[in-house]
Amino acid sequence: MRATVMHAAGDVRIEHVPDPALIEPTDAILRVTRACVCGSDLWPYASMEPSESSQSMGHEAIGVVEDIGAEVRTVVPGDLVVMPFAFSDGTCAYCHDGLHTACVHGGFFGSDGLGAQAEGLRVPLADGTLFKLPVGEDDAVMPSLLTLSDVMGTGHHAAVVANVRPGAIAAVVGDGAVGLCGVIAAKRLGAERIIVLGRHEDRTALARELGATDVVCERGEEAVERVLELTGGSGAHSVLECVGLEQSMQTAIGIARPGGAVGRVGVPQDETLPASRPAFFKNLRIGGGPAPVRAYIEELLPGVLEGRIDPGRVFDRTVNLDGVPDGYRAMADRESIKVMVRP
Amino acid sequence: MRATVMHAAGDVRIEHVPDPALIEPTDAILRVTRACVCGSDLWPYASMEPSESSQSMGHEAIGVVEDIGAEVRTVVPGDLVVMPFAFSDGTCAYCHDGLHTACVHGGFFGSDGLGAQAEGLRVPLADGTLFKLPVGEDDAVMPSLLTLSDVMGTGHHAAVVANVRPGAIAAVVGDGAVGLCGVIAAKRLGAERIIVLGRHEDRTALARELGATDVVCERGEEAVERVLELTGGSGAHSVLECVGLEQSMQTAIGIARPGGAVGRVGVPQDETLPASRPAFFKNLRIGGGPAPVRAYIEELLPGVLEGRIDPGRVFDRTVNLDGVPDGYRAMADRESIKVMVRP
Repeated sequence: MRATVMHAAGDVRIEHVPDPALIEPTDAILRVTRACVCGSDLWPYASMEPSESSQSMGHEAIGVVEDIGAEVRTVVPGDLVVMPFAFSDGTCAYCHDGLHTACVHGGFFGSDGLGAQAEGLRVPLADGTLFKLPVGEDDAVMPSLLTLSDVMGTGHHAAVVANVRPGAIAAVVGDGAVGLCGVIAAKRLGAERIIVLGRHEDRTALARELGATDVVCERGEEAVERVLELTGGSGAHSVLECVGLEQSMQTAIGIARPGGAVGRVGVPQDETLPASRPAFFKNLRIGGGPAPVRAYIEELLPGVLEGRIDPGRVFDRTVNLDGVPDGYRAMADRESIKVMVRP
Repeated sequence: MRATVMHAAGDVRIEHVPDPALIEPTDAILRVTRACVCGSDLWPYASMEPSESSQSMGHEAIGVVEDIGAEVRTVVPGDLVVMPFAFSDGTCAYCHDGLHTACVHGGFFGSDGLGAQAEGLRVPLADGTLFKLPVGEDDAVMPSLLTLSDVMGTGHHAAVVANVRPGAIAAVVGDGAVGLCGVIAAKRLGAERIIVLGRHEDRTALARELGATDVVCERGEEAVERVLELTGGSGAHSVLECVGLEQSMQTAIGIARPGGAVGRVGVPQDETLPASRPAFFKNLRIGGGPAPVRAYIEELLPGVLEGRIDPGRVFDRTVNLDGVPDGYRAMADRESIKVMVRP
């Protein structure tokens, strides 16, 4: 089959690789009907050394189950399923607590041969991982359903950890697909005011359509001042950090109201968190990490099916496998917010 | 009157200073009956430059109200009160939310002439700050009541932010007075297991008497390994960081269970928080700051009065004002856990 392989920064190729095959009795084989390129794929796209082993790319997918191992019980061939970006057994103590991304037998797609930007892939722990969809393969809400594999669940995680409540002032740092989903999530959880911090006009315009009430295009100290102005000097109760850089976290801490919370979902690119003392003296709570999107699908699915939320709007380009390398380039160049792949 | 003044690292003096006097109509004048030396006083004691202005020391007190301003309504001369380490108006949005240490009109004792290691002091915003005690001046529980001005409320804050729940595994980093109060707080909130990390045998022995079930005397990576061993490889649900150094925070993050929380109350001595990526990939929530002890007095007082908790045991030495400089030395040399002052 054909699959996406990254060899080094800027070097993404579509290659012929062996067809996926069952290894464990808990595996399933998925024929991918939709995948996408993630903002987190852009980190290795910017920095991967040529000396590193090549990497199977893609961790977000919807697909049709083609084959299952002897112990798989909850899906059968022919089922249309959404695949979260992490696999999990669904039975360990962490899965039981809803933290599937800490599953003791779990792991992440998009490495070790388990890439979703491909015609198909092997899904470990199929019972605990895959979620059967109650719609047809070409349903109109497919783009939004695809976001449940990562970005919508991730934006929701940021909002949950940031403790967004009805009436709260939320601020979203970052206008990428996750930030935009964070806006949707904050609105869904009842935020009265949603301030998005971003510099790309097309994205912040979309953020407004999705529920943002204010846009701050300044950066750094100026962004902090602007948010404080907008909030009567107090800051936001809930800050969703959707970038992962030191500067974005510094801004997130700066714009948070004393006693507030920062939910971070941007994969951190630095070893330390900045502004320890300001965060301390403001009594902030900083949390977040890889979103347990498997736990959130059930909660978010009705809103998608009934059209109350439309996170599929983050996709502004669709490519086939041959178009994937240019899709990476377009996202890296900020020409595209998020690229959907139809293998 | 006589008061404690710090001039430089290691240079603490008892000096004659002007008697405290009412300035604002919301002030009260307190005659101090009990004060104490705080672990946080040891930071300037270790590092204050001689060039800095001298500092009035002490932020924890019980005392008798001697005089009140025209607008004070809730205390009258003769009342015995506990004074939290921060003053607050009790009416702003932050006080309303229980975060008195973010009060828009508030501030901290132990600076700007407002030192409690003295015969008396002026208390701003008396109505929002002072808490009237229902006991006599020499009641046997006086040491425990005194801890409600800081260390017991601070240990409780660490436990609250660390989300200690019935059945939880809690770990307390630090065996100082706040760490010991953290042990009491974790037990009070129902922790099933309480692991204290400390190297001073007298303190960890006391920690065991107060409720610790395990003591880890290793440091750094070895401490992390030991706690993981003790917890079946998972770590603690709730970690109370009661030191404030980079290494102690690194340990706190290392011993926290995925999905767990770290409550930090040690005043941070560094500009950054370590281990950003490990904290992220474990989905930890890190919070804390200056404890809103004013909000906690009401909750903690019944347990003190009824003898269910006995945080006064952290005091192992009592001095008069003349003994304060040696009290600082004794605490800095780890000869004493916490020194009570009877002016």
